[in-house]
Amino acid sequence: MIVTVTLNPALDLTYQLDGGLSPGRTHRVRTVDERPGGKGINVARVLHQLGVAVVATGLLGGTQGEAIRTRLAELGLSERFVETGQDARRTVVVVGGGVSTGLWEPGPRLAGRHLDDLSDQMVQLISHARCVVFSGSLPPGLPSDAYRRLVALAVAAGVASILDADGDALTDALPAGPTLVKPNLDELGRAVGHDLSTLESTAAAATQLRLAGAGTVVVSRGALGLLAVTPVGTWLATPPRPIEGNPTGAGDACVAALARGLADGNPIDWPELLRDAVALSGAAVHRPVAGEVELEAYQRYRPQITLERMG
Amino acid sequence: MIVTVTLNPALDLTYQLDGGLSPGRTHRVRTVDERPGGKGINVARVLHQLGVAVVATGLLGGTQGEAIRTRLAELGLSERFVETGQDARRTVVVVGGGVSTGLWEPGPRLAGRHLDDLSDQMVQLISHARCVVFSGSLPPGLPSDAYRRLVALAVAAGVASILDADGDALTDALPAGPTLVKPNLDELGRAVGHDLSTLESTAAAATQLRLAGAGTVVVSRGALGLLAVTPVGTWLATPPRPIEGNPTGAGDACVAALARGLADGNPIDWPELLRDAVALSGAAVHRPVAGEVELEAYQRYRPQITLERMG
Repeated sequence: MIVTVTLNPALDLTYQLDGGLSPGRTHRVRTVDERPGGKGINVARVLHQLGVAVVATGLLGGTQGEAIRTRLAELGLSERFVETGQDARRTVVVVGGGVSTGLWEPGPRLAGRHLDDLSDQMVQLISHARCVVFSGSLPPGLPSDAYRRLVALAVAAGVASILDADGDALTDALPAGPTLVKPNLDELGRAVGHDLSTLESTAAAATQLRLAGAGTVVVSRGALGLLAVTPVGTWLATPPRPIEGNPTGAGDACVAALARGLADGNPIDWPELLRDAVALSGAAVHRPVAGEVELEAYQRYRPQITLERMG
Repeated sequence: MIVTVTLNPALDLTYQLDGGLSPGRTHRVRTVDERPGGKGINVARVLHQLGVAVVATGLLGGTQGEAIRTRLAELGLSERFVETGQDARRTVVVVGGGVSTGLWEPGPRLAGRHLDDLSDQMVQLISHARCVVFSGSLPPGLPSDAYRRLVALAVAAGVASILDADGDALTDALPAGPTLVKPNLDELGRAVGHDLSTLESTAAAATQLRLAGAGTVVVSRGALGLLAVTPVGTWLATPPRPIEGNPTGAGDACVAALARGLADGNPIDWPELLRDAVALSGAAVHRPVAGEVELEAYQRYRPQITLERMG
């Protein structure tokens, strides 16, 4: 079983307008789509779609939290979120006139005791888990080392862990020794403090994160694929051509594939796992919303991914 | 006790941005304000602020409905909404760069049985009421004569009723004989099928609505005040000068004043009541959101309203 942890989940709303969005005017919304969101929940949804046993946990509360729980139940997805008593955030995407406009609520201000409650919950869940995934931003009020503390629980229990985070939430957690971290190029650049223009500088930056505590660093390079620096070698996994579509959620699908690989295998067949992760990312690009993949595209892409050993 | 009826209530969200709204981009929302909305609820909030005993009813459901109930409880406002099991709508107002942009969700599709349930509920409430207020749009799925049926319950019980609606929802209800209807100029124009450019044509159109069944017609003329065609005479009530500010909610404050007047008095002192209604509308313009009035401005405006008998 895989556990996904989402500390700042969201109720994702998509508003479809008949025309474009005009600042200063009032618009009647034609249709409203409502989904459970947040990166960890997206990872859980992809795993669930693949038939992998998964439990979503994290921090959730209020009437928005109730709406998220209802939507997860409708999807048949198991959840063990800790109730915070404070309304989860919404994200609103307004689609009209050929463009999408996003409005991101900040999320509730949480406290250390919410993290304590989640730690207690996680100790229970980890004992049944093969891999734990930590994804997404920290809500306001939580310390930047929140992920360090949670990753340490997985490490202490000998369970594989994946961290997909940005900024201090990522760098402060590295000393706990997550099995794998998955920054994109921007996030990796922020973590090491400079832009990454070449493959060599990217591999060097990934190695820096390994030295800081991460077991493996998988760098998502958008439509160009993945660069992975593992304990047993460095690989570049590349799709045959850039895949057109909606890149939102490709990173979450990539993490879902990596989590399944870490949960399944020891020793890990890295070339096979990276091929799988690039194919599943590509299959997410075919879907208009995060947290879903096109299974037919996934099967089609898998044999097309090029693997190159770099070191 | 006054009963307000809101068939299509909303959770009103106000998003404050740091800068302007740019279509095609993603924005972090700085603050989120969440209020119970819908015209009948706004009327109830103004009455509650004035210390008048009021109960809000109507149709409400789902997790959004739960959020609206929670917010009403926080305001200390009594509610007896009928649960529909279907999510109430949201309205989102995005404030940034000096302009406000509105996004109106359509509301849930309801059915005749929801109206049956509300009728049962209303029979109970009306027996304790001095006035019933029906305000706002009908949710999708309800017949256009929904208000006719509900107004008839008040008429049968000998309780005063006010209807503030537009289009077929207004005109289809007139045969039931509401005590008072309060169209604005646009709504009155739509009801009679032509524009209203003069005071004479406005008074003639109001008289047409009386002939169709309304006891009194109070026409809100925006910053110009009110024109009232009553069973005992026609009056024009005018503020000393146009009042600058946010006109949203001025109509709801006007209805609140009229409801209090109908509940209190028999015979009604129309000049005094119209003076009161214009002053309270003006006091709502001083507030940035609907459903609130500035009590100090209300007291200041009251003696300044000019009354003119037209017939």
